[in-house]
Amino acid sequence: MKIAILLYDEFTALDCIGPYELLSRLPDAQLHFVSKKAGPVRADTGFLQIVAERTLDELRDPDLLLVPGGPGSRAASEDPAILEWIRRAHASTRWTTSVCTGSEVLAAAGVLKGIEATTHWLFRDRLEGHGVRPSSERVVFQGKVVTAAGVSSGIDMALALAAREVNDDFAQALQLGVEYDPQPPFQAGSPTKAPAHVVELVRAAMRPETMSG
Amino acid sequence: MKIAILLYDEFTALDCIGPYELLSRLPDAQLHFVSKKAGPVRADTGFLQIVAERTLDELRDPDLLLVPGGPGSRAASEDPAILEWIRRAHASTRWTTSVCTGSEVLAAAGVLKGIEATTHWLFRDRLEGHGVRPSSERVVFQGKVVTAAGVSSGIDMALALAAREVNDDFAQALQLGVEYDPQPPFQAGSPTKAPAHVVELVRAAMRPETMSG
Repeated sequence: MKIAILLYDEFTALDCIGPYELLSRLPDAQLHFVSKKAGPVRADTGFLQIVAERTLDELRDPDLLLVPGGPGSRAASEDPAILEWIRRAHASTRWTTSVCTGSEVLAAAGVLKGIEATTHWLFRDRLEGHGVRPSSERVVFQGKVVTAAGVSSGIDMALALAAREVNDDFAQALQLGVEYDPQPPFQAGSPTKAPAHVVELVRAAMRPETMSG
Repeated sequence: MKIAILLYDEFTALDCIGPYELLSRLPDAQLHFVSKKAGPVRADTGFLQIVAERTLDELRDPDLLLVPGGPGSRAASEDPAILEWIRRAHASTRWTTSVCTGSEVLAAAGVLKGIEATTHWLFRDRLEGHGVRPSSERVVFQGKVVTAAGVSSGIDMALALAAREVNDDFAQALQLGVEYDPQPPFQAGSPTKAPAHVVELVRAAMRPETMSG
């Protein structure tokens, strides 16, 4: 199974690496980080570079495509070369997927037209104007198109994909292998669970930064 | 706050990137991926390279040190240059931490002598012979030494660290920012929760591969 994870400037790393850690362990997985230019691509924090070992031209026919989110998703969603690559790849994928605001890029490529999709809770408006039906679910399957909510949700999406691609036993083995038995010290992972003042903290911190990103 | 995440050949990526995604957003964080040699370091799956932008010599005094696990932890735990670097760094850190079999490296450096520590559930025997008291907890705080269980547990550890380093509101804002509201499709993340045949699948798949890694 040929898997492509798209990188672009100012991607969010966990959007990629959560799913990567599980999907790279699927039977016969060949996973590639791809970007417009081969070489290191810098993540949104500025502190991390992941190497894109293939260009978009070098990998046009992934079986599974994953588009991460991040402050750079806005620019990616306006990049004709990226959108055209996604459209071509999507024509023959088994799965076309996104995490977080990666759905904004899929939407701009026309992949989400007329279907339900999710994204980071703070950026649901990014899906407007593309004919998408925004969802607040953590993982949304619509045929072969699968979208996940903010950042860490890609882990849950990848487990669900592993179950469909192989079977439940295999997906559970992956989960146990990475000891994914979440025990967060707080119950603050969604705007419906976090205290109101924490929701406001995040709104204030993330919107301006990401809007300009 | 100066944060160093150690890279070595055949590290497990999510061990690093889970905590990175949160710790890099601490106030005044300066986060560096460090390795014996600067440049790309390949993860255990073979499909990913993360760039180490500093050598060990170039960053000797982190405030927070994180050692990830992976098949390469055995070799790292026998590398005098890495062990000496950890010992020196530990002398002045505010936090010395590990994820998964990264604790094997801390143990070999003598950091865990006489204290409790956790690791990946399948590799607790790696802590034997170093005077460590092995724990099956997901995150173990012992003064400034903090160890986390397998792979994904580093996310929970980083949230707990953020709460102690800043405060609960800030840690919750980080959690909400990465929408860490886990909804795994299975309850199979620990050997006490997964079906017995799944536990056996993982034992068979991981032990031989990792032993030789």
